[in-house]
Amino acid sequence: MKLWLIGAYGIVSTTTAVGGIAIEKGLVDRTGLVSELPQFNSIDDYVKLNFKFGGHEIRDLEGNFYSAALMHWEKNKHYDFNILNEVKNDLKNIKARKGTALMCGTGIEEFGEIKTLEDDELSLREIVDKIEDDMRRFKDNETVVINLASTEPVHRFNKKYHESVDGFERMIDEDEKKYASASMLYAYAAIKNGIPYGNFTPSVGSSLPALKKLALENKVPHVGNDGKTGETLIKTTLAPMFLYRNLKIVGWMGYNILGDFDGKVLSHKDNKESKIISKDSVLEKILGYSPYSITEIEYFPSLVDNKTAFDFLHFKGFLGTKMKFYFIWDGIDAIVASPIVIDIARFLLFAKKRGKYGVIKEMAFFFKSPMENRVINTHEQFYQLVSWFREML
Amino acid sequence: MKLWLIGAYGIVSTTTAVGGIAIEKGLVDRTGLVSELPQFNSIDDYVKLNFKFGGHEIRDLEGNFYSAALMHWEKNKHYDFNILNEVKNDLKNIKARKGTALMCGTGIEEFGEIKTLEDDELSLREIVDKIEDDMRRFKDNETVVINLASTEPVHRFNKKYHESVDGFERMIDEDEKKYASASMLYAYAAIKNGIPYGNFTPSVGSSLPALKKLALENKVPHVGNDGKTGETLIKTTLAPMFLYRNLKIVGWMGYNILGDFDGKVLSHKDNKESKIISKDSVLEKILGYSPYSITEIEYFPSLVDNKTAFDFLHFKGFLGTKMKFYFIWDGIDAIVASPIVIDIARFLLFAKKRGKYGVIKEMAFFFKSPMENRVINTHEQFYQLVSWFREML
Amino acid sequence: MKLWLIGAYGIVSTTTAVGGIAIEKGLVDRTGLVSELPQFNSIDDYVKLNFKFGGHEIRDLEGNFYSAALMHWEKNKHYDFNILNEVKNDLKNIKARKGTALMCGTGIEEFGEIKTLEDDELSLREIVDKIEDDMRRFKDNETVVINLASTEPVHRFNKKYHESVDGFERMIDEDEKKYASASMLYAYAAIKNGIPYGNFTPSVGSSLPALKKLALENKVPHVGNDGKTGETLIKTTLAPMFLYRNLKIVGWMGYNILGDFDGKVLSHKDNKESKIISKDSVLEKILGYSPYSITEIEYFPSLVDNKTAFDFLHFKGFLGTKMKFYFIWDGIDAIVASPIVIDIARFLLFAKKRGKYGVIKEMAFFFKSPMENRVINTHEQFYQLVSWFREML
Amino acid sequence: MKLWLIGAYGIVSTTTAVGGIAIEKGLVDRTGLVSELPQFNSIDDYVKLNFKFGGHEIRDLEGNFYSAALMHWEKNKHYDFNILNEVKNDLKNIKARKGTALMCGTGIEEFGEIKTLEDDELSLREIVDKIEDDMRRFKDNETVVINLASTEPVHRFNKKYHESVDGFERMIDEDEKKYASASMLYAYAAIKNGIPYGNFTPSVGSSLPALKKLALENKVPHVGNDGKTGETLIKTTLAPMFLYRNLKIVGWMGYNILGDFDGKVLSHKDNKESKIISKDSVLEKILGYSPYSITEIEYFPSLVDNKTAFDFLHFKGFLGTKMKFYFIWDGIDAIVASPIVIDIARFLLFAKKRGKYGVIKEMAFFFKSPMENRVINTHEQFYQLVSWFREML
Repeated sequence: MKLWLIGAYGIVSTTTAVGGIAIEKGLVDRTGLVSELPQFNSIDDYVKLNFKFGGHEIRDLEGNFYSAALMHWEKNKHYDFNILNEVKNDLKNIKARKGTALMCGTGIEEFGEIKTLEDDELSLREIVDKIEDDMRRFKDNETVVINLASTEPVHRFNKKYHESVDGFERMIDEDEKKYASASMLYAYAAIKNGIPYGNFTPSVGSSLPALKKLALENKVPHVGNDGKTGETLIKTTLAPMFLYRNLKIVGWMGYNILGDFDGKVLSHKDNKESKIISKDSVLEKILGYSPYSITEIEYFPSLVDNKTAFDFLHFKGFLGTKMKFYFIWDGIDAIVASPIVIDIARFLLFAKKRGKYGVIKEMAFFFKSPMENRVINTHEQFYQLVSWFREML
Repeated sequence: MKLWLIGAYGIVSTTTAVGGIAIEKGLVDRTGLVSELPQFNSIDDYVKLNFKFGGHEIRDLEGNFYSAALMHWEKNKHYDFNILNEVKNDLKNIKARKGTALMCGTGIEEFGEIKTLEDDELSLREIVDKIEDDMRRFKDNETVVINLASTEPVHRFNKKYHESVDGFERMIDEDEKKYASASMLYAYAAIKNGIPYGNFTPSVGSSLPALKKLALENKVPHVGNDGKTGETLIKTTLAPMFLYRNLKIVGWMGYNILGDFDGKVLSHKDNKESKIISKDSVLEKILGYSPYSITEIEYFPSLVDNKTAFDFLHFKGFLGTKMKFYFIWDGIDAIVASPIVIDIARFLLFAKKRGKYGVIKEMAFFFKSPMENRVINTHEQFYQLVSWFREML
Repeated sequence: MKLWLIGAYGIVSTTTAVGGIAIEKGLVDRTGLVSELPQFNSIDDYVKLNFKFGGHEIRDLEGNFYSAALMHWEKNKHYDFNILNEVKNDLKNIKARKGTALMCGTGIEEFGEIKTLEDDELSLREIVDKIEDDMRRFKDNETVVINLASTEPVHRFNKKYHESVDGFERMIDEDEKKYASASMLYAYAAIKNGIPYGNFTPSVGSSLPALKKLALENKVPHVGNDGKTGETLIKTTLAPMFLYRNLKIVGWMGYNILGDFDGKVLSHKDNKESKIISKDSVLEKILGYSPYSITEIEYFPSLVDNKTAFDFLHFKGFLGTKMKFYFIWDGIDAIVASPIVIDIARFLLFAKKRGKYGVIKEMAFFFKSPMENRVINTHEQFYQLVSWFREML
Repeated sequence: MKLWLIGAYGIVSTTTAVGGIAIEKGLVDRTGLVSELPQFNSIDDYVKLNFKFGGHEIRDLEGNFYSAALMHWEKNKHYDFNILNEVKNDLKNIKARKGTALMCGTGIEEFGEIKTLEDDELSLREIVDKIEDDMRRFKDNETVVINLASTEPVHRFNKKYHESVDGFERMIDEDEKKYASASMLYAYAAIKNGIPYGNFTPSVGSSLPALKKLALENKVPHVGNDGKTGETLIKTTLAPMFLYRNLKIVGWMGYNILGDFDGKVLSHKDNKESKIISKDSVLEKILGYSPYSITEIEYFPSLVDNKTAFDFLHFKGFLGTKMKFYFIWDGIDAIVASPIVIDIARFLLFAKKRGKYGVIKEMAFFFKSPMENRVINTHEQFYQLVSWFREML
């Protein structure tokens, strides 16, 4: 597998790279990888767990995957240092390519000094050409692009440029930068070049009608949006039980705190909005009604990547009596996200090899806001994934 | 529906009676009733929500369902007093019949003065005759017996008396009281008289081979054991997610506190053992391995029936990193249990009317230790129930 | 004691009235009353626990203390209904007088239809005259005014009108309504008429220099601001320990949810600001440094008056290692606030009888933002109260 | 300072040694050290923060302080590895001396192979001689002995041997091993040789009348028992607030889980008993009454030294209404204990230099069950410590 990661020097990307290589080398076991469950046993006949990495970045372009991984490790110590040490040589020769941050909102300021293609006064067409060129040099038949960049502000749909492939091309040719966000450009470049694409963020990515059409034309599988990892994973596991038991949720509070760049970017109102929308709609989809709900994400620097969620459920049972349920999720974002990144890439390659393309909606299990699939109940999603996999064989 | 409740003056029985009648009178909505979900819409064609109640008891035999309901309400205020007031006349004429507490362990001491059939120096045959007589006077075609009595100590199987129907009859005739526990006598009486039987407790009830055979012979549906209501309901809803995501549980602590008679009885070691076994085995059944686990129940008088559970999950993810999850369940036992009592009775009657008998293993959804069904994942159990119901129509 | 309560039909006022009368009648014990601790034994020689109530209100002026108390009880069931029933006759004859809501912010909209003196097109002088008149008709030597109205927006100080007694009078005479908030008018009316005044809210109340001077001139004791009842009470109890043990707080999250009118009013940004400032400054005062901190209050309707706080402390210990502490406060606001209202009135009357006046800064124990006292550590505050009381005897 | 640590290769001892040396070398700051608070500024004139370590041990006698520290670090990663690396040379030359495990209960089995003086078939007198000899070779004027060994079973007092110094000597001479526990022998050896002694465990240590008398005769200061570090520290900080506010605790549940040797030893009933008694009595001492209370400690291997406590407080307020408070302590035992070990040693040396001897009861702040001091309220204890220190200057 060759993974091209957007946001290559972020903590999720580098943890994915460290983990992928460590697994290939037999340094660690495969805990956390869904594709390694007995149900998906034969996936290994299609997509082996061997890895090459590359990607786009806008920070620290002097550095490499190792220096970036080390920086995150120093702040988080989120796995045994020996592992990082053992993959050092594999990582230090991998350098990210300069990318774009178009329409990425004010949150981007938090990264300090950044370098983007648009800063070099390139036109949209030139930016896209550069991105495609980078991807083409990297790609082979086993390549996937995964978007792991920070959350963009909510996308404003423009019929003229976002509806059709032609419109999208025209947007590029007319250099209409204000309609083009980074995530859609990367998705476009991948799909145009026949590379499966996964959107791990709530950014727009490949969800534009234009790009969905392009994926069908080019027979490219793609998935998204927004990796389901922490609080929402628990929420979509628990909420169905209240439905089954005919217990009425009268209020659900979800309060998330995290530090790190992710927390900093999300402390910007425009960037946060996308995330909240993605998290917030799950209850209505599961329960069939919208209980009063609070969904908040706040910056808490000392936690760094240790995302903590505080949830409170107020529910009504028999005879109208109210009862309470509380949970605290004390997870490490990169540790829960990274194996899923590998899984998404692996299932996308499996789909490709089995001749599937367009939105692979049976991969909803991995996402908070799965494209073209209203199933959000974690259990139902898992069954969908298992059944689909069986059918594909 | 006519419900004959063992432990008739307990908080679950009386709350079931109050709730059943309040629903029939349209005083409250049907929140908490699984059988009222859209999926089971047509159950109403088979079993209507109208109610008569009766049962066996060993306490306060001068009282009635109303005085017992009032006593529990005074201590718990677990629903709006107006509801109790409006069903007062319906309840105050219902008196429980004197029952048995054979082999019920030391926990029974907590009830203070009790009156049992065995205290009247009756033989086992005479006790069984009395019980059958009470049930026969009450029963019609829509009657179900539900065991809501306190948890008995762990049952010790005796091949001679428990294996076959003949053996069981012989035990009664030979007056072998030390092999006969209350729950199996009630189950025997019900099944012998063609009345569906549900065991809401971890006591042995109808799980004896002898009684299973009798149920097949007499074409009587029965189910059990141990209503899945609080902490275990959450546990069996959450644990599957860790499995799907290939996250390894390295420790699970479950610490339950409750007051009331249930708490008092369970503070007796012999009675507690049954409960712990029932709760403790669920993780292995779901995960396929047994993580280090703590399952405890302790008496905490000020909570009365407000059962509170503290759970801590320690799990290992990608790269071997450990993470944490905590939950607190702050429920009211009678409020979560009572609607399920009605559901169990209703689905049993539905089964009977559709010609089903023996253990209705598709009703596992309602139990911690379902008979003849290893499926313990709440989601899978719900799908089983829904599919079975559809097939039965 | 005669308590004149601003916001007379609110849940804290009515619960105070119910509780005060119930204590006087011997219906309930004195749990929750600080002034009933052995340390303050002899306070009974100065101020007995007998009660008369009155107050100002802007809602439901057709009603009375009983109808208001009943309305809150129906929503909260926060104490045994029998108590309310037994004080019914005492309460139903007490009617609040029409008050003012000047400069009370947009939160006031939440009350629906309100009636205020300013709606009657009265001048500031006429409003003040009416208020004073109401208080004078009620008062005797044992009367205290307590402000229990909703939180006003942050007060903007005006040197001309707020610095001196003369300036304040000029503001009234010049009908400068935009500089006059309700809480300061009530405080002025009380102090001018020699009635001790306690400010249970974060509103400005008697903290204006002008009113502090008036209190000294008229020899009236007064205290405030913002009753310390729930999360802040715990915070100011716990934080000192981290100081004593030289453990460094690196982050403190405090997230509060509540329903009811209080929650609704605080969901207005202008009104919330005062509250947050009051809550937020306590850590710096205790620790001597300002850790990263989150202090939020959000509306959560199903909880009604059941205020719930979620706190997370991240702290650094020996060798720089970070550790965690979580707490959940599940309290009922009126139940924790009401006894303190009685205590504040009682200690103010005690102060008056012992010849004390001006800000009684030794009563800091009862407040989040005590006037003229930087001691915020709950323990130190308690010792101050005890020592002061002893000295006063 | 020279610290002679009983249980020298345990996690608290080795973390104390790592931390002490790291502080001396300026590698880390002094967070966690009470004696470094501004209130105790001048302690540096009496006792500087420079360190030498030694001690008794019964495990791994081939190893040294470094190998022991490394073993604990590997399992816990409880501080930055670089710190350990930088003190490696200081630690690897320190070897513990073989000690005794007399009357240490069944928990000792958990350590696997151990080597004790009694295994060498020495008499009590010979054991004591060896221990004294080890201490004498190490000691100077700035030496303290601190007991950090595992908790012993509850001590059974014997008037003949434990009441007087003569009796104690006789017990040794008569080789009455069953009346002599390890902790009292170490305490005896220290006090006899004029070395201040601190008991960080609930074991009997120097609390015997005989040893208290010896300490007075030899003018040696000593303190204990049982370092107050985690749940009990919080409990004794919080409980006073409920007292001050006249809120009645109706139930307090404290459930502690931990792994490591400490957890293993405490999973032995005889060893656990001492701990529970020490933890359990604090509420009565603070509140003046004994609320219903649960205090439990259970082994939870995956947590290793990460001690986690779950507490639930049920309390009654105004009008008899019950409310709830929950907390979770997620601390690392060695990290909270080690700085206090240094503080205890330092204040003992300060006491000695200021001519104080016998039980230094003003050091209660550091202990769960302070000798000769009923003050258990953390705040009051801190004031006592501060006042005593000021007086001593």
